Amino acid sequence: MPASRFTPEPQPGLPFDDDRVHEECAVFGIHGHPDAAAHAALGLHALQHRGQEASGIVTFDGQRFNAHRELGLVGDIFSSEAVMSRLVGHAAIGHNRYSTTGDTLLRNVQPLFADLSLGGFALAHNGNLTNATTLRRELVTRGAIFQSTSDTEVFIHLIATSAGSNLIDRMLGALALVEGAYSLVAMTDDAVIGVRDPLGVRPLVLGRLGDAWLFASETCAFDIMGAEFVRDVDPGEMVVLGQGEPRSIRVTSGNRQRFCVFEYIYFARPDSVIEGTSVYEARKAIGRELARESLPEADLVVPVPDSGVPAALGFAEESKLPFDLGIIRNHYVGRTFIEPGQEIRNLGVKLKHNANRPMLEGKRVVLVDDSIVRGTTSRKIVQMVRATGATEVHMRIASPPITDPCFYGVDTPERGQLLAAQMSVEEIARHLDVDSLAFISMDGLYRAMGRPGRDSGQPAFCDACFTGDYPTRLTDRENPNSPQLSLLSELKRA
Amino acid sequence: MPASRFTPEPQPGLPFDDDRVHEECAVFGIHGHPDAAAHAALGLHALQHRGQEASGIVTFDGQRFNAHRELGLVGDIFSSEAVMSRLVGHAAIGHNRYSTTGDTLLRNVQPLFADLSLGGFALAHNGNLTNATTLRRELVTRGAIFQSTSDTEVFIHLIATSAGSNLIDRMLGALALVEGAYSLVAMTDDAVIGVRDPLGVRPLVLGRLGDAWLFASETCAFDIMGAEFVRDVDPGEMVVLGQGEPRSIRVTSGNRQRFCVFEYIYFARPDSVIEGTSVYEARKAIGRELARESLPEADLVVPVPDSGVPAALGFAEESKLPFDLGIIRNHYVGRTFIEPGQEIRNLGVKLKHNANRPMLEGKRVVLVDDSIVRGTTSRKIVQMVRATGATEVHMRIASPPITDPCFYGVDTPERGQLLAAQMSVEEIARHLDVDSLAFISMDGLYRAMGRPGRDSGQPAFCDACFTGDYPTRLTDRENPNSPQLSLLSELKRA
Amino acid sequence: MPASRFTPEPQPGLPFDDDRVHEECAVFGIHGHPDAAAHAALGLHALQHRGQEASGIVTFDGQRFNAHRELGLVGDIFSSEAVMSRLVGHAAIGHNRYSTTGDTLLRNVQPLFADLSLGGFALAHNGNLTNATTLRRELVTRGAIFQSTSDTEVFIHLIATSAGSNLIDRMLGALALVEGAYSLVAMTDDAVIGVRDPLGVRPLVLGRLGDAWLFASETCAFDIMGAEFVRDVDPGEMVVLGQGEPRSIRVTSGNRQRFCVFEYIYFARPDSVIEGTSVYEARKAIGRELARESLPEADLVVPVPDSGVPAALGFAEESKLPFDLGIIRNHYVGRTFIEPGQEIRNLGVKLKHNANRPMLEGKRVVLVDDSIVRGTTSRKIVQMVRATGATEVHMRIASPPITDPCFYGVDTPERGQLLAAQMSVEEIARHLDVDSLAFISMDGLYRAMGRPGRDSGQPAFCDACFTGDYPTRLTDRENPNSPQLSLLSELKRA
Amino acid sequence: MPASRFTPEPQPGLPFDDDRVHEECAVFGIHGHPDAAAHAALGLHALQHRGQEASGIVTFDGQRFNAHRELGLVGDIFSSEAVMSRLVGHAAIGHNRYSTTGDTLLRNVQPLFADLSLGGFALAHNGNLTNATTLRRELVTRGAIFQSTSDTEVFIHLIATSAGSNLIDRMLGALALVEGAYSLVAMTDDAVIGVRDPLGVRPLVLGRLGDAWLFASETCAFDIMGAEFVRDVDPGEMVVLGQGEPRSIRVTSGNRQRFCVFEYIYFARPDSVIEGTSVYEARKAIGRELARESLPEADLVVPVPDSGVPAALGFAEESKLPFDLGIIRNHYVGRTFIEPGQEIRNLGVKLKHNANRPMLEGKRVVLVDDSIVRGTTSRKIVQMVRATGATEVHMRIASPPITDPCFYGVDTPERGQLLAAQMSVEEIARHLDVDSLAFISMDGLYRAMGRPGRDSGQPAFCDACFTGDYPTRLTDRENPNSPQLSLLSELKRA
Repeated sequence: MPASRFTPEPQPGLPFDDDRVHEECAVFGIHGHPDAAAHAALGLHALQHRGQEASGIVTFDGQRFNAHRELGLVGDIFSSEAVMSRLVGHAAIGHNRYSTTGDTLLRNVQPLFADLSLGGFALAHNGNLTNATTLRRELVTRGAIFQSTSDTEVFIHLIATSAGSNLIDRMLGALALVEGAYSLVAMTDDAVIGVRDPLGVRPLVLGRLGDAWLFASETCAFDIMGAEFVRDVDPGEMVVLGQGEPRSIRVTSGNRQRFCVFEYIYFARPDSVIEGTSVYEARKAIGRELARESLPEADLVVPVPDSGVPAALGFAEESKLPFDLGIIRNHYVGRTFIEPGQEIRNLGVKLKHNANRPMLEGKRVVLVDDSIVRGTTSRKIVQMVRATGATEVHMRIASPPITDPCFYGVDTPERGQLLAAQMSVEEIARHLDVDSLAFISMDGLYRAMGRPGRDSGQPAFCDACFTGDYPTRLTDRENPNSPQLSLLSELKRA
Repeated sequence: MPASRFTPEPQPGLPFDDDRVHEECAVFGIHGHPDAAAHAALGLHALQHRGQEASGIVTFDGQRFNAHRELGLVGDIFSSEAVMSRLVGHAAIGHNRYSTTGDTLLRNVQPLFADLSLGGFALAHNGNLTNATTLRRELVTRGAIFQSTSDTEVFIHLIATSAGSNLIDRMLGALALVEGAYSLVAMTDDAVIGVRDPLGVRPLVLGRLGDAWLFASETCAFDIMGAEFVRDVDPGEMVVLGQGEPRSIRVTSGNRQRFCVFEYIYFARPDSVIEGTSVYEARKAIGRELARESLPEADLVVPVPDSGVPAALGFAEESKLPFDLGIIRNHYVGRTFIEPGQEIRNLGVKLKHNANRPMLEGKRVVLVDDSIVRGTTSRKIVQMVRATGATEVHMRIASPPITDPCFYGVDTPERGQLLAAQMSVEEIARHLDVDSLAFISMDGLYRAMGRPGRDSGQPAFCDACFTGDYPTRLTDRENPNSPQLSLLSELKRA
Repeated sequence: MPASRFTPEPQPGLPFDDDRVHEECAVFGIHGHPDAAAHAALGLHALQHRGQEASGIVTFDGQRFNAHRELGLVGDIFSSEAVMSRLVGHAAIGHNRYSTTGDTLLRNVQPLFADLSLGGFALAHNGNLTNATTLRRELVTRGAIFQSTSDTEVFIHLIATSAGSNLIDRMLGALALVEGAYSLVAMTDDAVIGVRDPLGVRPLVLGRLGDAWLFASETCAFDIMGAEFVRDVDPGEMVVLGQGEPRSIRVTSGNRQRFCVFEYIYFARPDSVIEGTSVYEARKAIGRELARESLPEADLVVPVPDSGVPAALGFAEESKLPFDLGIIRNHYVGRTFIEPGQEIRNLGVKLKHNANRPMLEGKRVVLVDDSIVRGTTSRKIVQMVRATGATEVHMRIASPPITDPCFYGVDTPERGQLLAAQMSVEEIARHLDVDSLAFISMDGLYRAMGRPGRDSGQPAFCDACFTGDYPTRLTDRENPNSPQLSLLSELKRA
Repeated sequence: MPASRFTPEPQPGLPFDDDRVHEECAVFGIHGHPDAAAHAALGLHALQHRGQEASGIVTFDGQRFNAHRELGLVGDIFSSEAVMSRLVGHAAIGHNRYSTTGDTLLRNVQPLFADLSLGGFALAHNGNLTNATTLRRELVTRGAIFQSTSDTEVFIHLIATSAGSNLIDRMLGALALVEGAYSLVAMTDDAVIGVRDPLGVRPLVLGRLGDAWLFASETCAFDIMGAEFVRDVDPGEMVVLGQGEPRSIRVTSGNRQRFCVFEYIYFARPDSVIEGTSVYEARKAIGRELARESLPEADLVVPVPDSGVPAALGFAEESKLPFDLGIIRNHYVGRTFIEPGQEIRNLGVKLKHNANRPMLEGKRVVLVDDSIVRGTTSRKIVQMVRATGATEVHMRIASPPITDPCFYGVDTPERGQLLAAQMSVEEIARHLDVDSLAFISMDGLYRAMGRPGRDSGQPAFCDACFTGDYPTRLTDRENPNSPQLSLLSELKRA
């Protein structure tokens, strides 16, 4: 069966790539609140860092499911009274989507909704299935017609065609077939349902606001509305919010746990708490550990803003070196910025960062960043810091070298574009033109997370991007085949 | 199984209702021309009167299917080089869609495309299935997930799940299951296919332009590009355009024919020729017949522009009465026109029509119009003509009274809103405040069409809107149930 | 003093040129109606044929002047309640503007408003000053800063700098300085004022609706709202609508009158009555005169739609030849229509017109059109009619040959592009490939208008485009100098 | 003479008010670079913090002035090749404009351009004239017609009507008439001109890039393009960039200097250097001084992000207390965010800030912010920090109490809305519900700026917002009269 050969109308893509890896989504759910949509909008706003391209909310008002999904930021999409007044209902689920380059917008437009023979069903998803293409191929052969390329639609087709006399049973049937990482929130006409994959790779937390119960990708979504954090949803657990107390159903019997350690390093908001650990504290702890592992002679600790700040503060605390904002970030960078003229072609990084000259001149600087992906931005920042008059530049990185792509919902470049997959640490140091370079060690990272070190037999986290040790099967990768697009009628607006 | 309870994002509707019935679609297909999309755009432009809300073209370039579908007029959508340069290929199908009020835009966004297990498949459709809801219900129960409410998608699901080792066989399998009126054009990776329903209710013609072969709803689409009209596709015939000469396949064995007589009266363009008869000539013939049947004492024949002009010319010819444009039409009417202020609430009709006072003052006028639907516009026009100083107004209508709704792809109001379903001719005359009123008789209409009169045992045309004599089963109507919406991820633009 | 060298932001131009000359504007005014803006919108809608690019209304509510001006059609611009609810007031003036190619949108954006030292002043204008550039140059030298290139702004600066203790006196002072053709409507905080130039080249009529008084370019603007036509404003007359009855002021003492005859031939709506003559009747009379002057042996009279229809009806009446719509017009032509592909480059005319083949085949056809400008469209229409099977084509034109440009507010091409300025009638006939060609004679035109013929000493009309006999000085033309743009801060929307 | 009573079409306003005062503009100029517009775009991007509503660039290419001005962010407006390719020329000036609420967009759309009798003239302005209304009134009485309400246009009219045989002389003539604060950049057909007001209230710096010379509001605009900072333009100095070296002209003879101290406290970017002092260092110095003046017993220093960070770092350094990001800022706040539902009405501040609970729980916190305007945000932040578990909250403010409005181009609220104009420090402390509150003292502020203290006879800075000691006349304020709007023809897009 060939790959799809359909080229739909082009959709505006976002070419911006700031040399970071990206989380692909956030999810939110709420049940039992008269103003469910407004709280979903607040929660999605707090989770905006997990996806900035599009956002959607579906509510249920006892009679009908009401939807609004649109490109843009949460604060813009859900700010009009016209939109909010349509989203009536006591239950809602919502989704933020990350902007992937080179893909059509149809991918991952969420929440999806389907009128199944057992009733309406809405679904939003953070993560990635590692056997989605394989499942899709089987479904198409049986006559299923797909509308998008998203994994989320595979779930819906599995539910539509699985046995079971109610939607919960059908979800369990569908979950038995999928592999990979997924934090789901779903909504039927009597429940809002949250599910975390068997290893708990992606986060999902349970909260409470008065009589209402909530799901969110991170606790910061509860803080914004003054809701109380109750607990993390367990790996392999389904929680059903309906009448009465939340009901817990075990989807899988295993009890291994492999939470994504990169959520602590970069993805999650610093003010979130995951599995009992403050993200901000974790980052400072990594910075302290890094100072213990590799402290150069220097005058000043400078973070690469904004994500390098907590680790840099930890590094400065431990090393007793002064801390200063030696690089100033311009928050007004638009979505595109064509630079005309040969001469200014290389100013890219300066659109976003400027060296704070009086702080750096004549200093030996420790630059602290969270990670190195392609290294293009790091290289320009070093160059800018040197040009400003720093006498030495020592770079310290709050994660181990990234050597392997992620298949669990994080947008990483191909292996060939990962700097640390191509070069040794010494080579990277030369490439970046730094006086010294150190990454946190694998064991140092685990120590910072409160463990004795990495137990290679049963690691506490998913750290596949640093180790290539993938915690699930990678079925699609073993049977490569492009995704299948099946039915398309999206419409351009006049 | 309940009706869908999903309320998607609202889409801009078009509240404009000018008291006419409306054709819902036009189709076009071309195979074997290096510039297929450009010709499809020209053809759709010539067919713009059959649908003004949205338009779409899908091409096949030997490797890929390329699509562009958008709200608006053909001349605006397909005028940009960016759009046209993507629509490469030697084969193309296209579609215009009528704007229905109160429905979401998802309905009938065409051509639809699906990646089926046997390959890519694009489909556009003019008409309506009378068992679509019934078929859809069965498909959903078997796990099918629908994206739109359109009949076209039912076809695609039937093809996806029918047996047959190639797409032509599967189409024949699907066609065996559907009832109603349909002129289809489809495209696979080796053919463009045209199909007309067993009774030929909707039009479809075959043409030729050099080595290329074409399908269109009407011959005016061939004229615009200098193509040659070859023949009407027969009722119940499938014509396959591929390598070599067109191949004809009989879908049904019957030979009854029931072409929609209203196409002659109002829908089709006057410069089209259908089943050997000029539409303009047919309208003039009806006007002449009407003058023979019911000629009042009068000074002047005045058409209700623009559709009443040919019948009025025929009426004037036969009656030897002078003909003048006593009503002037303003072609600049926008899509909406809110009339603020109580006092001017009743000026609606004047936004579109103005009486040509010096022509009408002191005259006994015969007003000729093509049909009466709700009668609201007719009433205002009579009032305007009287206010201008006409001493008598005699109305003559070039169709019989419309008493029954259409189920074959024409947007007619509910029976309760059809004036002739509620009142006798005398009552209508009083309601419209005319000095006399006559509709063409049923037999007079058939005579104008070159028949001896209506053969009630085997009428030559579908005239169900005048007679209630529906030529097919009306399965959905016998088993009422709202349409089912199954999977929706349409996206509002930022 | 050099011409302006400022290039502002580009504005969307309208490349469409359908080989006609174009009126540049419509004006409307109303005083004494609580719902002034709504009536202005209706009036401008009825006058849409005089300008389709932009429209504007300014009202006065006793305290403030309120404005809305926008690109687009009247029915779209003034259909939103948000817009209309701001336009409160008992007095309003309005303007439609024609789309000129190659000019920025700043030109003629009207009504203009200025806060003068004597109070607020709004102004709208139909016509053209023939000494505007000369006046502008003087004003700039004295320190005036211009914002647009429009003549209307020259008026405003003249009023701002003229002596006089009230705005009426200042208007009279300014009018004493200008030359050319102008129908103005202006508004101050106590009056709505209409002015027609000394020769009455452009039309302006006075009407009444209950207690309110109105100005409009044509009477059809009164019909749409049921207002009563009172009289034409006289050449050289200022009419002031304020408290009590309208007040008439003579601006000039002369009594010559030179109304533009082309308003009867093409510009005005057929249902308007100007200076006591029905436009529709005038066109039919020209057609009858044309048949008397030059009747070929033929089978059928066919109008070039839509503007040729009344003359063709007159021609058919006089000649007793049958009349038929042998060419069908497609009213859905969008604003642009790129025709890709070499082969279809020449289909332009077919986007708008199609030959009605069954009516034309084997016939000797008289084609009646209102005028010939460049001849490009005429040529294609003849070619299309011949290709359809007409055996002879005789063209009859309801105006004399256009040989000279207009300087009074009509957009005519350069002399070099006027076909009749370059060729004799015989040459044009060959160029168009017709079997015979005749234009109405100059005296025939005057006879059709109810005169004995053209009195070359004192012609009753402005017919400069046919004769080069311009009724006013052409000061700017004698002192050529580009227009001067002085202060620009127009803003593109994000 | 009454105030303008004209209400133009409404323009999208930006209701967002984050309880800060705002700089109204940035200016930039460049002469002698082949790619002038691209560098202007980069410079304006670096100055985006001084104005986010609209941006404009005018270039001169030796023949013509080319302009592009648009609503939105620099990076979006000047990112299209279509825009940049029009902006050819070796000289350019540019402007960013702050979004003021409740004003029409016409205000301050810049650069303005006028075709004066001596040639083209473009002008951009940062600051505010204190006698603009008075001057405008005189100009209107003499017949001038204004298009905008901006001070910039007053300059242009003064230049248009002043004596002088060249534009430099005319500028000097105009500058002799104006009062207030203004940093101007202007462009003629042979020069780019920068002017700073006699007291140097607003900043303007001179730079060099290869052979090209530049003006900018701040040095960070030079850093982004690798240009060299040359010197500050002096108070009362005009610098002319043309052929050869820059030419300096003294506009005024005085040598007092009163630079706006609030530029150091809040407006300027921390990486800029003004009058020899690093803005970042100045803020840290204020923080250190504040710690010396008023150090509470506490566990943690927490900045209100982002503007409070440098002062908080200085405070922590001096006090030896730990520093942590106890409040996390969400940078994704859209332009509007309607909060539906009574219950969540008070979450406003949380859309932008979240307390970092694990850092704050059980701690005695010193909150450091740059200033207090209305106090609404401060109050909510304190409430949020307390709710998170902080046991004590001590607030320290890096500026003296703001008691008086600014008339020099900074958007401050009315006196009645300035918290410190209504309450004593003790009352404010109670109002904000803090355990202690201290502002930096007036002398402390001067000490932090490297002075011995404030010399009330000749203060080194403009500190009128803290003292009411305005360094110029306030003519308009003494003769109150609304601004005058004179000629408007702005156009809404279709």
